[in-house]
Amino acid sequence: MKNKVEPKTLTGFMELLPEKQILFNNMVDIIRSTYEKFGFLPIDTPIIESAEILLAKAGGETEKQIYRFEKGENDLALRFDLTVPLAKYVSINQNNITFPFRRYQIGKVYRGERPQKGRFREFYQCDIDIIGDGELNIINDAEIPSIIYNVFSRLGFSNFTIHFNNRKILNGLFEELELKSKTTDILRIIDKIEKIGKEAVINEIEKIGVDKEKIEKIIDFISITGNTDEKIEKLKYLNISNEEFNIGINELEDLVNYMRLFNVPDENFELDLTIARGLDYYTGTVYETFLNEYKQLGSVCSGGRYDNLAEFYTDKKFPGVGISIGLTRLFYQLNELGILTDGDKSIAKVLILPMDDNIEMCIKVANTLRENGINTEIYTNNNKKIKAKFKYADKLNIPYVIVIGEDEIKNNTVTLKNMETGEQESLSVQDVVLKIKKT
Amino acid sequence: MKNKVEPKTLTGFMELLPEKQILFNNMVDIIRSTYEKFGFLPIDTPIIESAEILLAKAGGETEKQIYRFEKGENDLALRFDLTVPLAKYVSINQNNITFPFRRYQIGKVYRGERPQKGRFREFYQCDIDIIGDGELNIINDAEIPSIIYNVFSRLGFSNFTIHFNNRKILNGLFEELELKSKTTDILRIIDKIEKIGKEAVINEIEKIGVDKEKIEKIIDFISITGNTDEKIEKLKYLNISNEEFNIGINELEDLVNYMRLFNVPDENFELDLTIARGLDYYTGTVYETFLNEYKQLGSVCSGGRYDNLAEFYTDKKFPGVGISIGLTRLFYQLNELGILTDGDKSIAKVLILPMDDNIEMCIKVANTLRENGINTEIYTNNNKKIKAKFKYADKLNIPYVIVIGEDEIKNNTVTLKNMETGEQESLSVQDVVLKIKKT
Repeated sequence: MKNKVEPKTLTGFMELLPEKQILFNNMVDIIRSTYEKFGFLPIDTPIIESAEILLAKAGGETEKQIYRFEKGENDLALRFDLTVPLAKYVSINQNNITFPFRRYQIGKVYRGERPQKGRFREFYQCDIDIIGDGELNIINDAEIPSIIYNVFSRLGFSNFTIHFNNRKILNGLFEELELKSKTTDILRIIDKIEKIGKEAVINEIEKIGVDKEKIEKIIDFISITGNTDEKIEKLKYLNISNEEFNIGINELEDLVNYMRLFNVPDENFELDLTIARGLDYYTGTVYETFLNEYKQLGSVCSGGRYDNLAEFYTDKKFPGVGISIGLTRLFYQLNELGILTDGDKSIAKVLILPMDDNIEMCIKVANTLRENGINTEIYTNNNKKIKAKFKYADKLNIPYVIVIGEDEIKNNTVTLKNMETGEQESLSVQDVVLKIKKT
Repeated sequence: MKNKVEPKTLTGFMELLPEKQILFNNMVDIIRSTYEKFGFLPIDTPIIESAEILLAKAGGETEKQIYRFEKGENDLALRFDLTVPLAKYVSINQNNITFPFRRYQIGKVYRGERPQKGRFREFYQCDIDIIGDGELNIINDAEIPSIIYNVFSRLGFSNFTIHFNNRKILNGLFEELELKSKTTDILRIIDKIEKIGKEAVINEIEKIGVDKEKIEKIIDFISITGNTDEKIEKLKYLNISNEEFNIGINELEDLVNYMRLFNVPDENFELDLTIARGLDYYTGTVYETFLNEYKQLGSVCSGGRYDNLAEFYTDKKFPGVGISIGLTRLFYQLNELGILTDGDKSIAKVLILPMDDNIEMCIKVANTLRENGINTEIYTNNNKKIKAKFKYADKLNIPYVIVIGEDEIKNNTVTLKNMETGEQESLSVQDVVLKIKKT
C-alpha cells in the first residue's frame, strides 16, 4: 500500500463547510434570479481558453497573474475575468445572437495573486452586460443601478450607495486643461483620494509636472459638493466649453432621470466625481457600490460603459455597459464581519428518525413529504442512541424532526418536533405536510 | 493598434448559445433541486488542486489525460472528477462534518481526451454521495435508485431502467471458482457482453486461461434470466457456499425490498448480473442507468457502493455510496437527437416595446411587473422599426409583448400580445400581472 498523502486545499482557494456553502449558494441564487428578473440570458464559457485569446488585450499585472500552461501543442490559460470571454463569445456568435444582447455569467475566474487574507486565486464573478450592435441607449446605463439596487436589497442590505460618474466629464476636463497626455496618471492619483486625502493628491499631481493653476481647477472639480442634482448644476457653472465634457453632463442628467423612473431611491445613489475605474476601458458611465456600514470592504459591485467590447477580435463596434460582483471576496468579508447569520441554513426541512429497526413507515412518510416538495432526510444509523440522532438534526440545523416508533406505527401518526421551540405534537402525515408547507 | 486575434473556442469545450444554455441550466436546476429534496448538502471544491492530491490514487489513463502544470513552486492539476476532491474534503473536515455525510456537488471537471464527437475536455459532473463514518446502512443503497428515478422522471423521461448488481456476488463467485487472481480480467471481458456478444466473451475468457467447466459456470451465472425476484431466487439455487456471495444475495434482497418501499416502480429497475463498473473501487451495490429508447448513449447515471473513500489520505474508514451524471455529454447527445425542445426557452416572460421616445410609462410598467416577480425586459433600440422590435421578441422566444404608445399612455392601459397565439388585448397593468402570473 502506498504511503498516505496529506490532504490539503491550496492556499488562496475558498472551500467552505456545508453550512457556509448553503449561505454562499443563497447569495448566488439571489443574484441569478435578480439578473433573470431583468431579462438577462445565461451563458457559460470555458474556464480554459487559448492563451492568445485571453492575453489579446492584457498586460502588466494580468499577464503576471495568469495561470498559463501547455497541453500537447496548445498554449492555454485559465480565464482571469468574464469580460474577455464575453468579448470572444460576442465576436464568434455575432450573427447568431440578438442585440441588444443582455447576458449574465456567474463563474469562477483565476488570478495567481500573492496570497493574503481575503484575496483569492480562484473566485466567483457575477457579471451582467448589455451589448449593443453599433449603438446602445443610455437607458441601459440607468437600468444597471436599478439591478444593483435590487440585488443588494434582496441580499438584505439597505444602507448602501451606488456611486457613479461619467468618464466623458473627466476626459473633457483634462482636454480643456490641456492635460490629456497626463490623464491616466492624474486619474490614478485621484482614485486614491479616499485613501490618502486631498493634500496628498495635490502633492502627487504636482510631482508629475502639472502647474498650480490647473491643479486648483482639478481640485475645485473633485471638491464639488451637494446632492446629485446640485452637483450637476455646479458642473454646468464651471463653464467648460469642451464638447465631451458637456456630452458627459447631458448623459449624467439622463442617467439620473431614468434611474429615478427605475425606482432607485435617491438615498441609494450619489454622483461621485472622483470615480474613474480603470484607465482606458471605460468611456462613459462608471459605477462603484459601497456598503456604508462596511466601507472598508471597498466597492462590492463595479462596472461601467465601454465603447468597444471586442476591439481585439473584430473591427465591429460593440458598445456595452455592465457590472461585476466579486462574490467570493464579498462572502469572505461578510462572513468575517459575522453578518451572515440570516437565511436558510439547512437543506433538509425534516429529518425522520426511526426509533427502531422498523424503517418501513419512515420511508413511506419520506416519500409523501418529498412528493409534496418538502426536502426530507431519513436518519439511517439505527444503532445510535436517541440523543445522538437528535444531535444530528441539531448540527445540520434541520428545523423539524419526525419520530417514528412502535406507537406511531400502531396509531398511523407521527411525532413532529419543532427543533427551535422544542414543541412536540402527534399528527397525521397529511397534517405534517400542511403544517410545514405553511412555514 | 495591435493586429486582431482570431476569436475561437478550444476544441472539446462546450459553449452554447443562450437558447441552449437555458435548456442546459433547466437540467442543472432539476438535478440540484432533486438532490436537495433528498436532503443532500452542497459543497464546492476548487478546480485546481495540488497534483499530488489528485494523483494519489490515479494511474493509467487518468494520469495521461490530466491537465497538470506548474505555477511558481507548485505542482498543480485540474480535477478530473468530483470523487477525489470529496475524499480530500472528507479527510480534511472529518471532525467538522456530520455523518452520514450527504453531499452533492455539481461542477466542471477536466480530461484532456483525444477530441471526438460527443467527448468533452471540460464537462459537468453532478454527483451525490452518502458517506458513513465506519459504517453505512444498506437503506442508503436503496435510496439512490429512488433519487435516480426522481431525477430522470423530472427531466421528462419515463422509459428508463436502473440496472444494478452487487460486486460481492461477482467477487464471491470468482473466489468459489478459484479465479480470484483473474477477476479483473474476467470482469473487463464480461463488461463488454452487450457490445460483443456471448460467444466472443467465452472466447476471450478462454484466452486468459480459464478452463471450460469454469467458463460454463460463469456463463450460466451471467445468463440467469427472469425478473429481479426470479433472478435472486435462481442465484440462491446456484448453491454457491462462498460467504461473500451469500452476503451479496442478502444485500440484493434488502436493496430490492427498500427500493420498492421508496416507490421505485418495478419497470424502472432490473438486476443485471453483468454490471461490474470499474475494477477495484466498488465493493457492493453498483448502478447503471439506461434510457431505453436511446441505448446508444450508454449509461447516463452510474455509481455504486465503496468501502473506503479516502484510503489514500487517511487510515480512517469512510464507506460510501454515490452516483454521477455526466451532464455535458448527456446534454450534447439529447440535443443531437433533437429531443430537447421542451421547457422554458426564454428568460424574460415579457418584452416591453416603446412605440416612440416616450419611455417613461414603459419603465413604470417594467417596475410593476418585476416587483411582481415577472421577468421583464424593455426594448431600448428606439430607432428600429416596429417589425424589427417584434422580431427581437420572436428570436428570444419571449411569450408576451407589451406595446406602449400614445394611445396607451393616454388611456393608462397597455396592449398585451400573446406571441404564440397572436391574440392581442388592451389591459390595465394590474390585469397583465394577474394574467401572466396565472400562466
